[in-house]
Amino acid sequence: MNPDISRERENASFNLEILTNILDGGAEKTRRRREIESLVISDPDFQHEDLNFLSRSERYDAAVRKSAQMILKLREYGISDPEEIYSYKSIAKGVYQEPFGVHYVMFIPTLNSQCTAEQRKKWIPLAESFHMLGTYAQTELGHGTHIRGLETTATYDPSTQEFVLNSPTISSIKWWPGGLGKTSNHAIVLAQLYTQGKCHGLHAFITPIRCMKTHMPLPGVVVGDIGPKFGFDEVDNGYLKLENVRIPRENMLMKYAKVEPDGTYVKPPSDKLTYGTMVFIRSMIVGESARALSKSCTIAIRYSAVRHQSELRPGEPEPQILDYQAQQYKLFPLLATAYAFHFVGQYMSKTYHRISGDINQGDFSELPELHALSAGLKAFTTWVANAGIEVCRMSCGGHGYSRCSSLPDIYVTFTPTCTYEGENTVMMLQTARYLVKSYKQARAGQQLTGIVSYLNEPQSRIQPHSVSSRPTVVNINDLASLVEAYKFRAAKLVEMAAKNLQAELQHSKSNEDAWNNNSIDLVRASDAHCHYVVVKLFAAKLSEIGDTAVHSVLSTLALLYALHGVALSSGDFLQAGLLTVPQLAQISQRLKGLLSELRPNAVALVDAFDYRDEMLNSTLGRYDGNVYEHMFEWAKRSPLNHTEVHESHHKYLKPLRSKL
Amino acid sequence: MNPDISRERENASFNLEILTNILDGGAEKTRRRREIESLVISDPDFQHEDLNFLSRSERYDAAVRKSAQMILKLREYGISDPEEIYSYKSIAKGVYQEPFGVHYVMFIPTLNSQCTAEQRKKWIPLAESFHMLGTYAQTELGHGTHIRGLETTATYDPSTQEFVLNSPTISSIKWWPGGLGKTSNHAIVLAQLYTQGKCHGLHAFITPIRCMKTHMPLPGVVVGDIGPKFGFDEVDNGYLKLENVRIPRENMLMKYAKVEPDGTYVKPPSDKLTYGTMVFIRSMIVGESARALSKSCTIAIRYSAVRHQSELRPGEPEPQILDYQAQQYKLFPLLATAYAFHFVGQYMSKTYHRISGDINQGDFSELPELHALSAGLKAFTTWVANAGIEVCRMSCGGHGYSRCSSLPDIYVTFTPTCTYEGENTVMMLQTARYLVKSYKQARAGQQLTGIVSYLNEPQSRIQPHSVSSRPTVVNINDLASLVEAYKFRAAKLVEMAAKNLQAELQHSKSNEDAWNNNSIDLVRASDAHCHYVVVKLFAAKLSEIGDTAVHSVLSTLALLYALHGVALSSGDFLQAGLLTVPQLAQISQRLKGLLSELRPNAVALVDAFDYRDEMLNSTLGRYDGNVYEHMFEWAKRSPLNHTEVHESHHKYLKPLRSKL
Repeated sequence: MNPDISRERENASFNLEILTNILDGGAEKTRRRREIESLVISDPDFQHEDLNFLSRSERYDAAVRKSAQMILKLREYGISDPEEIYSYKSIAKGVYQEPFGVHYVMFIPTLNSQCTAEQRKKWIPLAESFHMLGTYAQTELGHGTHIRGLETTATYDPSTQEFVLNSPTISSIKWWPGGLGKTSNHAIVLAQLYTQGKCHGLHAFITPIRCMKTHMPLPGVVVGDIGPKFGFDEVDNGYLKLENVRIPRENMLMKYAKVEPDGTYVKPPSDKLTYGTMVFIRSMIVGESARALSKSCTIAIRYSAVRHQSELRPGEPEPQILDYQAQQYKLFPLLATAYAFHFVGQYMSKTYHRISGDINQGDFSELPELHALSAGLKAFTTWVANAGIEVCRMSCGGHGYSRCSSLPDIYVTFTPTCTYEGENTVMMLQTARYLVKSYKQARAGQQLTGIVSYLNEPQSRIQPHSVSSRPTVVNINDLASLVEAYKFRAAKLVEMAAKNLQAELQHSKSNEDAWNNNSIDLVRASDAHCHYVVVKLFAAKLSEIGDTAVHSVLSTLALLYALHGVALSSGDFLQAGLLTVPQLAQISQRLKGLLSELRPNAVALVDAFDYRDEMLNSTLGRYDGNVYEHMFEWAKRSPLNHTEVHESHHKYLKPLRSKL
Repeated sequence: MNPDISRERENASFNLEILTNILDGGAEKTRRRREIESLVISDPDFQHEDLNFLSRSERYDAAVRKSAQMILKLREYGISDPEEIYSYKSIAKGVYQEPFGVHYVMFIPTLNSQCTAEQRKKWIPLAESFHMLGTYAQTELGHGTHIRGLETTATYDPSTQEFVLNSPTISSIKWWPGGLGKTSNHAIVLAQLYTQGKCHGLHAFITPIRCMKTHMPLPGVVVGDIGPKFGFDEVDNGYLKLENVRIPRENMLMKYAKVEPDGTYVKPPSDKLTYGTMVFIRSMIVGESARALSKSCTIAIRYSAVRHQSELRPGEPEPQILDYQAQQYKLFPLLATAYAFHFVGQYMSKTYHRISGDINQGDFSELPELHALSAGLKAFTTWVANAGIEVCRMSCGGHGYSRCSSLPDIYVTFTPTCTYEGENTVMMLQTARYLVKSYKQARAGQQLTGIVSYLNEPQSRIQPHSVSSRPTVVNINDLASLVEAYKFRAAKLVEMAAKNLQAELQHSKSNEDAWNNNSIDLVRASDAHCHYVVVKLFAAKLSEIGDTAVHSVLSTLALLYALHGVALSSGDFLQAGLLTVPQLAQISQRLKGLLSELRPNAVALVDAFDYRDEMLNSTLGRYDGNVYEHMFEWAKRSPLNHTEVHESHHKYLKPLRSKL
């Protein structure tokens, strides 16, 4: 054990295990999580080569192998609880991605929810026994966010009772589905349904794409891998071009809409049913933001505790870089953010499950709010975490750039969350739509409930320049007061956006133009709303914590989180009259104080996330702090070191020598 | 040609060629640049496979081949002017990095500047004829920024008149030098010189590391590749561990310091001589920031002009995504930044050459200012460009994540500039040191000259809350007024940092602690100073432009750049009393107006950067806008598509099938 990092641990002011239990949601959950982790980590079948040393084809091969092994192990251990499967997989996968993740996450669930009973009887056993391996083909080369714009067609031919599937243009080629390129033999294809000469919009079709015996593409199917990406190298995201591919009528998922044998189209009773899954996935992404950021902080803070550099005081040894205020200012607000997002993730998951219960009992009342919240928080947390990972990486200096730090990998794996499951700006605008609607309802005298109820309050109609007359100027040392300030700021920005929208309507051609011409304000309002929710939930979490020492350190983190946000957006708070100019300087000084207060607990606070070395896969973030030895060992395994003299020396360098 | 992008070009309000000439620094320079570009692009020897489809070893091989070819071509064409070599290479390299770039950039220049006449006679011909291929080994596993902390030792043995080189610890292993792993047979090793029992600090030693005949590592030399990184996959950054490696006394670079045969150490006359190169490289990086960002903007803006998505108005076709205000707000401020940085890069290069002339004539007076400016601007521009590339990538939605967009590649190649040649935070603090020193001099009555002369002005001692009494509140429509506002803001923040430093000294143990405890303020002051310089230089550039149409569009860009910066840091401007709260709302509205004004010229403004498709290497950024066709063609070449059925299907997937 590196003595620097041991000393850090001795200095911690709180009991690590208590905090870990809070993060896990209870001591029993911690115990079970560790049990599953040990199961994986001690399993010789999961000791795979570092992906960084493999070619893309080898990576794909290794990932398919690992995915297959996981299935066999889960069968062997009899793990069947969905949460435990999730937990087992996330440990077993490590930094690997699953080439046929879409098979579980989208293919089977879609079959379950959109098949008729008869269809289910036919397809589910095939899918669950892995005779069918499926993907979900929605996005096209030219169409992502706006799914109504998809171009793939499924035209019903009553003479043979088949659908004829086509990709009529280049831009209609299915693009991106995971596992489509090489792995799957079936795809659920989203296509515009044509029957009896009329288009009935998007429907889902089970489409065989590869022969179940030979795995060769079927006639009319052009399928392949879309090529290397920023990350996810081991996944075969694919393309799919359909040329008069005929499938039986029964391959349309017909639980809701139907096409009769003669081609008569039967409308679905309602189309609100995919809503829930979307909300669920976005809520889960909030937790992913917390995990990606907490892993990055673990690596950067541990490394900063063992890395020594430069001189603080002449003649003294080089200090740990964690002693530099500039380094603390990069990392501690991100550490606070990781905690904040973790608690927000817990809240979203809990809320989702509570509301799901209501929905199952026919009560949809809370769904719109959760939908708006999950959209905004998905965008808010992924953007912040995305930028934060890179700050962590760069805070490790040159070594952060090495793949052995794992930080490049965390980044390229995480960054797609800003785009998938709803592009972030689009998400922010969805939340803004809900906020503006709520604001208008409040103005019309309706009493709002839930998280937007702050739009009811008369204080939200803040007048500029009324600071001195208002008692609501923030107390910068009081978290509750800061929560209020975030609330008023959000209210102010929602109001401003709504008013600008109103004003724009006077000279805009349409509602839609007015909306577009105020997008900047709308995104800003959503952002402020989400920021308020995060600060509020962090503060609320504190009230649940009984242990004094843990409460104390988390309170410091929460205050840092809140004040740092105020400092970054000080213009907003000044503009809303929530802050005075002299307070800005006080906040600066207070922030410096909070960094010093957190310094002795920094390593313990990342230890509490409880990531085992096998899960971090980072030489810089090792628990024992023995960074340099392991970097050297890792480097020796680089494929370029397999031979002493690379062939290029003989081919190109020697011939370059000119006569002396 | 895609009709959307043609229409964009027809709508441009200015003459493209005039703007391109301004960017190149004159019509003749544009002509010659294009001539060299054509030379490379039409050369069949440079039609290489896309690096994205190669394994690391293949990438290295391809890059060595390309580097070797470039040398042969430059000989063949007789191109010898350093600027033309630079320009030829930067085109020929394309997205490839040069495995032996360090040979030219560091190895040969160091030999030239630090060899005695006799040494030069021996080594230079060997290096220039490529019998020697060299690298520069400074950074160690445990030591980067603080070079005095390097641990490698060179101990003089008078009995054999040799130096004995050692890596005494793991942390002393040389780490990172480009071309060290596999390519080089020599390294200039920076080591602590010991002679007659005393350490004389760092000196440079020419160290043979591989046999010039067999290319095998020499005895006592442990050398290899440090393994895969975030980018620069085709470069063999290396490690070097020295175990009692003996080199002749004459291998120490002895132009300045010397070791006599008996071991007597002779001190160098001065140590200011490496200063110049450092300043030069940092100045050049400012230009790199402009290039990386302008390439990214070219890709994102062209793609946004051909990509259609969602609905603006019901019933109308999907609009170009460039019509969304939120998209404009992401991209146009970055476009303005790319122009700003380009002009700052031109200024830095010109200033460096002017001051070099002075230095050669013994006048060092302007060097400290240039040193401080190059440090700060290097950090300021690389941070902004670094984040900006990612905004561009994500503004392309999912497709930005594909390697075919080239944006991941631009990012991973550019991001090390935030770390190398001076870690950015360290750079900001260096600039802060100069600013605080200048501020103190001004307070002591000294009259400052040059770019910090604003610290002389009494207005810089701004009182808070004096807005109404001061006439200097900014005119948000006037660039000159905004430049003044940036200046006062910088002055205010330098003053605040200096005062906090002073206050801290009352209760700090030392100057160094006080400095560390105010790093946040100091970095912020540097940042504001650099921001002022950029706005000022952009405004200054406008005054040189004669063409009315070009002047007009660049003025809009400059105003956007300046106002966007004010909006992002509005707290600072409010705090300094340079802005009133009602003006904030005006700025928001003005920004929206500027986005609309720029919209018709957006594509032309990126066209003016004049990157040929071969240099962008991006399917999304193609000049002809035919994005989807080329993405499909590119994907088909993915190595995973070389076979229809991947072997993993037979190995892992079929065995997974359970009985039905």
